[in-house]
Amino acid sequence: MANKEPEIITDKTQMRKWSRGMRSQGKTIGFVPTMGFLHEGHIALVKEARNHADLVVVSIYVNPGQFSPSEDLSTYPSDINGDIQKLMAVPGGVDVVFHPHNLYDYGTTNPSVENVNGSGGDEERNVGVVSCLENNGLGHETWVKVERLEKGMCGKSRPVFFRGVATVVTKLFNIVDPDVALFGKKDYQQLRIIQRMVRDLDFAIKIIGSEIVRESDGLAMSSRNVHLSPEEREQALSISRSLSRARIAAEKGQINCRELKESVIKAIEEAGGRVDYAEIVDQESLVAVEEIKSPVVFCVAAWFGKVRLIDNMEIDM
Amino acid sequence: MANKEPEIITDKTQMRKWSRGMRSQGKTIGFVPTMGFLHEGHIALVKEARNHADLVVVSIYVNPGQFSPSEDLSTYPSDINGDIQKLMAVPGGVDVVFHPHNLYDYGTTNPSVENVNGSGGDEERNVGVVSCLENNGLGHETWVKVERLEKGMCGKSRPVFFRGVATVVTKLFNIVDPDVALFGKKDYQQLRIIQRMVRDLDFAIKIIGSEIVRESDGLAMSSRNVHLSPEEREQALSISRSLSRARIAAEKGQINCRELKESVIKAIEEAGGRVDYAEIVDQESLVAVEEIKSPVVFCVAAWFGKVRLIDNMEIDM
Repeated sequence: MANKEPEIITDKTQMRKWSRGMRSQGKTIGFVPTMGFLHEGHIALVKEARNHADLVVVSIYVNPGQFSPSEDLSTYPSDINGDIQKLMAVPGGVDVVFHPHNLYDYGTTNPSVENVNGSGGDEERNVGVVSCLENNGLGHETWVKVERLEKGMCGKSRPVFFRGVATVVTKLFNIVDPDVALFGKKDYQQLRIIQRMVRDLDFAIKIIGSEIVRESDGLAMSSRNVHLSPEEREQALSISRSLSRARIAAEKGQINCRELKESVIKAIEEAGGRVDYAEIVDQESLVAVEEIKSPVVFCVAAWFGKVRLIDNMEIDM
Repeated sequence: MANKEPEIITDKTQMRKWSRGMRSQGKTIGFVPTMGFLHEGHIALVKEARNHADLVVVSIYVNPGQFSPSEDLSTYPSDINGDIQKLMAVPGGVDVVFHPHNLYDYGTTNPSVENVNGSGGDEERNVGVVSCLENNGLGHETWVKVERLEKGMCGKSRPVFFRGVATVVTKLFNIVDPDVALFGKKDYQQLRIIQRMVRDLDFAIKIIGSEIVRESDGLAMSSRNVHLSPEEREQALSISRSLSRARIAAEKGQINCRELKESVIKAIEEAGGRVDYAEIVDQESLVAVEEIKSPVVFCVAAWFGKVRLIDNMEIDM
């Protein structure tokens, strides 16, 4: 099947213009936000998007706003040409790849803001490129916080992560203006945070969570897997394997969360990993439970060498 | 001139449907968010909206999210029928009055959120009416924070005010989907916060700030003026009068902010008011200055009895 080449848009004004134009023709837009270095998990989201909308937009943007200074922003893998090849191979293709350079650069003029006092003071104080890390009074300073859901699990070890995610997703929603947006369940806490944000801020966007895609041996697909050594790659299987065993045990009646968590932690540590957290939480509120009596999700984050991986499994009781 | 009666919409889904319908016809929408009990200041915003868009939507909603428990939510004045009469008297009229009952009630089902795990757990956990003050794991918990601009001036004495304003304006923008929105300069800090938020979150909305409308004796129009006793009403003139004197003094070369602020504080206190703050700040960054060398705004908040009033004057140097 010969697939179309996606239109590459790098400018947010152009992106918005494209969306408005398509909307005015009555077309619906499905949106898959990514940080690039695409794998089968992303491709599954793109395929799913085709089922929900006339047109599909994929964004590729490594968002500096969700990394803290000590994290792996500088080494986050990228391969824009490879990404576009992969997207072209998706049945039906992708209509637009939105690949902005810097979403926190507000430039020297700001068309969305009109200063009607006529003071003329703006020109002198505009400072060109503005990064989200600056704080000179004109830099980015608006953050969307989903205050309770962002606190636990990944929020504990990555304190600015979810405010960065919620903020950039808000920006992307406002630029791309989609009808439907798709997020993978591998980032389970992120999915719930985005769903809550969409409800609380009244975005007219339907959020769809898509199942985790795994390698044939069970490792959850992640752009960060590329950084694992062969040995770490083998050790990392301890996450999905111990989670699977825990799910089977729970389904057989072992509903004590302390014991289930201990077994997962032990398995990962024995394999050579360092557990960041292992938590069994309500699927919607993400509140930790002591016994499994209703649908929960077992979430794990663990380090293998310098690579931090996350994974989870839903247990539906 | 016989003016049309506005359509009254109370449901956010209906509001959005109206906007989408109008947009699909190529119409532009101007939006004036208010808390009702309209005065000439609001009417000036509505008239200005007519200059910028084909259609005008006015929202009337007293937002609980911006009041702290000790503040005057319960006594905030309202008069929806009077408001509609006033809007009908505006030349050209108003197309829609959006008057929702509770923007933080997410009901028992949430069309924007699809739980695709098929667990069926949602129905049991949904809790009917959800207020922004609840914290049972399903209540409103997403807040938009403009972190630096919200800290000073009114933010000092009203700690949740601006996050509440930024959040409800985000909600209203997502529901009403306007091209242009108008805010009065009386709430100067609010205007700058909304402008910054719109820039930082990439809303495709032009923000226009409109000049303060004053009573003939100089008192800035405010819905809260109705709570002033005749004596307090007279005392309150000390704000606008002392600000005017300060502006004239500055224009004549008195640029020392400490002295200018002291003269305003003294005038208000001698009249019987209690000053919350008196600050001279940069018009855009709202950073306090020591000497007036560039465009500033002199902002004041003061109590007269149980009524807290704000006012400001721009000084363009």
